[in-house]
Amino acid sequence: MLKLKYINKKYILKTNKQIILKNRPVGLPGKDTWDLVENKIPEPKEGEILIECEYISLDPAMRGWLNDTKSYIPPVQIDDVMRAGGVGKVIASKHATFKVGDFVYGQTGVQQYVLTDGKGYHQVNPNLAPLPTYTSSLGMPGMTAYFGILEVGKLKEGDAVLVSGAAGAVGSVVGQIAKIKNCKVIGIAGSEDKCNYLLNELGFDGAINYKSEDIKDQLKAYFPKGIDVYFDNVGGEILDLALGRLALHARIVICGAISQYNNTEAVVGPSNYLSLLVNRASMTGMVVFDYAKDYGKASMQMGQWMKEGKLKSKEDIYEGIENFYDTFLRLFSGEKLGKLVLKVSEH
Amino acid sequence: MLKLKYINKKYILKTNKQIILKNRPVGLPGKDTWDLVENKIPEPKEGEILIECEYISLDPAMRGWLNDTKSYIPPVQIDDVMRAGGVGKVIASKHATFKVGDFVYGQTGVQQYVLTDGKGYHQVNPNLAPLPTYTSSLGMPGMTAYFGILEVGKLKEGDAVLVSGAAGAVGSVVGQIAKIKNCKVIGIAGSEDKCNYLLNELGFDGAINYKSEDIKDQLKAYFPKGIDVYFDNVGGEILDLALGRLALHARIVICGAISQYNNTEAVVGPSNYLSLLVNRASMTGMVVFDYAKDYGKASMQMGQWMKEGKLKSKEDIYEGIENFYDTFLRLFSGEKLGKLVLKVSEH
Repeated sequence: MLKLKYINKKYILKTNKQIILKNRPVGLPGKDTWDLVENKIPEPKEGEILIECEYISLDPAMRGWLNDTKSYIPPVQIDDVMRAGGVGKVIASKHATFKVGDFVYGQTGVQQYVLTDGKGYHQVNPNLAPLPTYTSSLGMPGMTAYFGILEVGKLKEGDAVLVSGAAGAVGSVVGQIAKIKNCKVIGIAGSEDKCNYLLNELGFDGAINYKSEDIKDQLKAYFPKGIDVYFDNVGGEILDLALGRLALHARIVICGAISQYNNTEAVVGPSNYLSLLVNRASMTGMVVFDYAKDYGKASMQMGQWMKEGKLKSKEDIYEGIENFYDTFLRLFSGEKLGKLVLKVSEH
Repeated sequence: MLKLKYINKKYILKTNKQIILKNRPVGLPGKDTWDLVENKIPEPKEGEILIECEYISLDPAMRGWLNDTKSYIPPVQIDDVMRAGGVGKVIASKHATFKVGDFVYGQTGVQQYVLTDGKGYHQVNPNLAPLPTYTSSLGMPGMTAYFGILEVGKLKEGDAVLVSGAAGAVGSVVGQIAKIKNCKVIGIAGSEDKCNYLLNELGFDGAINYKSEDIKDQLKAYFPKGIDVYFDNVGGEILDLALGRLALHARIVICGAISQYNNTEAVVGPSNYLSLLVNRASMTGMVVFDYAKDYGKASMQMGQWMKEGKLKSKEDIYEGIENFYDTFLRLFSGEKLGKLVLKVSEH
């Protein structure tokens, strides 16, 4: 069944394991949401490359792509490979610019090999940063943090900044950028370990454990003059409490709402939204893809900060495409620290 | 009891009828919320003027001023005269700039006479526009509409604009300004009469009667490409439906939330707020006082549009300070057309 004569001998007898969407979940994805299938590894035609995927990016946004509703990109279709970003190595090429041996980032999907015409892919340099970093601080989460806090949040020196999901891939970078810009930064996270990480490793000025502390009291203590910028990754009650503590002309960046993604009932709206009126404040949504033309510039800046030791990138890496489902659920259980990554290559 | 010898013989034997806050309402104000009292008419000291109030502006925002909560201005205190804007005539002056006979606008409060040092007052010209217009299109509601739609809403030629409370003092001006700027304008109002007024007198492109029509269907029909600017005076369900119909990069101006002001339960938050993310849209609150330094420029522009017949001002005027309570409730029952004004002078 397997094609024995393959373009690169190393891959003879291998198959392409893929995660396929089988059923649209209601609420938290279940074991029947995806299937693991094996297919033969395809061959590139003229203008195409074959990539061996190494690290797959697991992100909360992926939950949204499962819903059959109008959104900023179409939903993943049933029987299609699950959409995801990933980094891998070009192992066969009939492409003008990508060569065998190049490392690239793109929307690989959750699979071990991907055939593509290279559109939307860009080269990454494994000598500058470890490959998983390109799914993290030097990837979409990093770009989201960069443009979210600087462009949408209009961060100014000295702002009092609150970030939720602060130990996550986006939140941890948001907080560090705000520290670089001489702001006061308070993070909200879901465990003592995460709070300690924010305080001791990332240099946050304060951390609130939303599972054990009174968030409202803590916000009052940390923001006596109110919050200037709130970077929201979670929605729900925390968004409401932040709204209740805004400073004049505050900016809320709506980056995500992880507390609401697996709801089986209607999303809970922020009942304190009239605080926007009282405080002449704004709440603005963002999608990182809109800033694609400036990714290069941002990556250079982020790389520079990393080199200077001002920006740390932390990835929590799990192994085996077979473990996709269990690993994905860590996004919502919070059992991870930093960027969640799945290693799918088998060497 | 009354001081007989008064500075201006005309006012001898008169008293100053005032509306005083007696009890903070829960929900819709009741008959015990205010008292009508009579006091003697005060005399100006050096640097003061005495104004005979003629027209008092009745606005939804006044409901908010009754709550003992932190907001953009302090609440009205128990036993204080109810706060309100008003126009009147200077009838006695020991002031350097305001002379007897001048007509002025300011925070007169709901009373027949007010003594003031003139701070926050400005002169109005009854020959350019009828006095009540200065509580309406040439007053705070007009300024709110002007800065709200142009500055906060960042209105652009050709935008598809939705305005709620569209037959009200603010909404009707918002829609007319948007028409002047060559936008498509749809208004939401609460009666056939109001909808006809929007369509036939103000030149709106469409009107939705929220009491008898399916708002969601109507929004879909009127905005096939989505709403570019939604000017929200009402909050509640209509805000949620507008969120569900946004165009990319839409701007929502949060000017008020009349559907929520008399709530005895928690404000209903907009459960569709994640549409802000999907559409990279923003929701921004405003308070007109922030634009005070530019009122003059805006008034000139509005006056010019009125002169050219492009902007109509409609006031719904009731008489008698004794009727304050019943008249005020019209703000919330919707039984009025245009700007609600109470004439309190007795000649």
